[in-house]
Amino acid sequence: MATFKLTLEYDGTEFAGWQTQPEGQRTVQETLERALHDVTGWPVSVVGAGRTDAGVHAEGQVAGCTVETRLEPETLARALNANLPGDLCVVAAAYAGDTFHARRDARSKRYRYAIWNARTPSPLRARRFHHVPAALDVDAMREAARALEGRHDFKSFQAAGSAITQTVRTMSRLAVEASNEVDRSGGAGELFVEVDGDGFLRHMVRNLVGTLLEVGSGRRDPASLPALLAAQDRREAGPTAPARGLTLVRVDYGPSAAG
Amino acid sequence: MATFKLTLEYDGTEFAGWQTQPEGQRTVQETLERALHDVTGWPVSVVGAGRTDAGVHAEGQVAGCTVETRLEPETLARALNANLPGDLCVVAAAYAGDTFHARRDARSKRYRYAIWNARTPSPLRARRFHHVPAALDVDAMREAARALEGRHDFKSFQAAGSAITQTVRTMSRLAVEASNEVDRSGGAGELFVEVDGDGFLRHMVRNLVGTLLEVGSGRRDPASLPALLAAQDRREAGPTAPARGLTLVRVDYGPSAAG
Repeated sequence: MATFKLTLEYDGTEFAGWQTQPEGQRTVQETLERALHDVTGWPVSVVGAGRTDAGVHAEGQVAGCTVETRLEPETLARALNANLPGDLCVVAAAYAGDTFHARRDARSKRYRYAIWNARTPSPLRARRFHHVPAALDVDAMREAARALEGRHDFKSFQAAGSAITQTVRTMSRLAVEASNEVDRSGGAGELFVEVDGDGFLRHMVRNLVGTLLEVGSGRRDPASLPALLAAQDRREAGPTAPARGLTLVRVDYGPSAAG
Repeated sequence: MATFKLTLEYDGTEFAGWQTQPEGQRTVQETLERALHDVTGWPVSVVGAGRTDAGVHAEGQVAGCTVETRLEPETLARALNANLPGDLCVVAAAYAGDTFHARRDARSKRYRYAIWNARTPSPLRARRFHHVPAALDVDAMREAARALEGRHDFKSFQAAGSAITQTVRTMSRLAVEASNEVDRSGGAGELFVEVDGDGFLRHMVRNLVGTLLEVGSGRRDPASLPALLAAQDRREAGPTAPARGLTLVRVDYGPSAAG
């Protein structure tokens, strides 16, 4: 028996999210567990650091699993990749301590949300960018973002109906970055919202982005963000931005948790 | 009647190339012509600047057409986009002179070929990058590229069986660019081969890239490129690199041809 930390990249477009669904839909977890079963001959359960929603992508999702195998991490990864479909790949593998738990041990995560801000859609960006046709005020979005950085109660940004009651999180960074390669009139071109945090509520990043987009399009005052946080009411925040724009970029652990 | 210059972006993955096929496969030309028919009520023929192959993408393909319409270019583009599928978009439209011919009048084109050089595949790059697992020697590729720049007979890089006999072209630039964001061991990460030229033979860019990849992997001496050009023999060059990595980036016209 050995415990592994697997780093995964996937294109979420054709997955019904991370978590195995009772209806037998195609999920990342179920696809990975089936490949582990094919490679080792044993049923294997994996734990994901973040339960990404349907359509959300990952560059650095982390999965932990304890497996009946003598394969070295690199060999296991190669064998898994030979059994995985083209939209899911193990990009790194390492031994982890026996008690490693990919979700509970995670210290921080980084998400990136990609926006294509131009009058016309971009077919080459269609799977990974949310298209916003009207020109966005990036400076106003940055001002709003600054008000959200730090330790706050993010209840206003949690999906309605969530059972989680402890809704204070630390968001150490919320950056709005514009690509310099703007070549299309009528917008900022590629825009990225990058978020680092110690934990995220359900739909929190997409709700933050939906709110920032209201600010960028002039429908919400960037100075109103502190009041929105204080309201602790999901109905006060903006709409949930589409899943296709979101990518789980990386998950960080303390030095001891994962080897 | 008005003549238009339409700039197109498309994800070539699900198109059987630019040109209408007798078997009625899904092509870019046929999809665009159908949308023009839907918008104007008339049958319309379009001419493309480059006849991209199945799976090849475009950021700035140019199509010319003469249309029975009073719509302004911007309005026509909007109407077309409302009728086009998500993987094809008119990103710019302008009036052109009556005699505009998108292919004959083109002075130069730029293509980009994208390579993902890392041990493991990248699901998020799968549609647009050719995956090369073994580490590439980028400096050797650059040395080989320099030998190919300029005015040469590129017969060795033309698809076998092509009927074209005038095979001298000027390739003003052939650059091998590595992204600085290498974060994965065992390779150069993202690598781009960019080519500017006054004309391209069938499969020429993909054959150039296939040859550069042989150089990068140590199977061909960069100093042998002049002899390869002189051979004028397709069998001496490398294999045709896969279509998925190739994008037609832009087409340039003289100041008079397209308004």
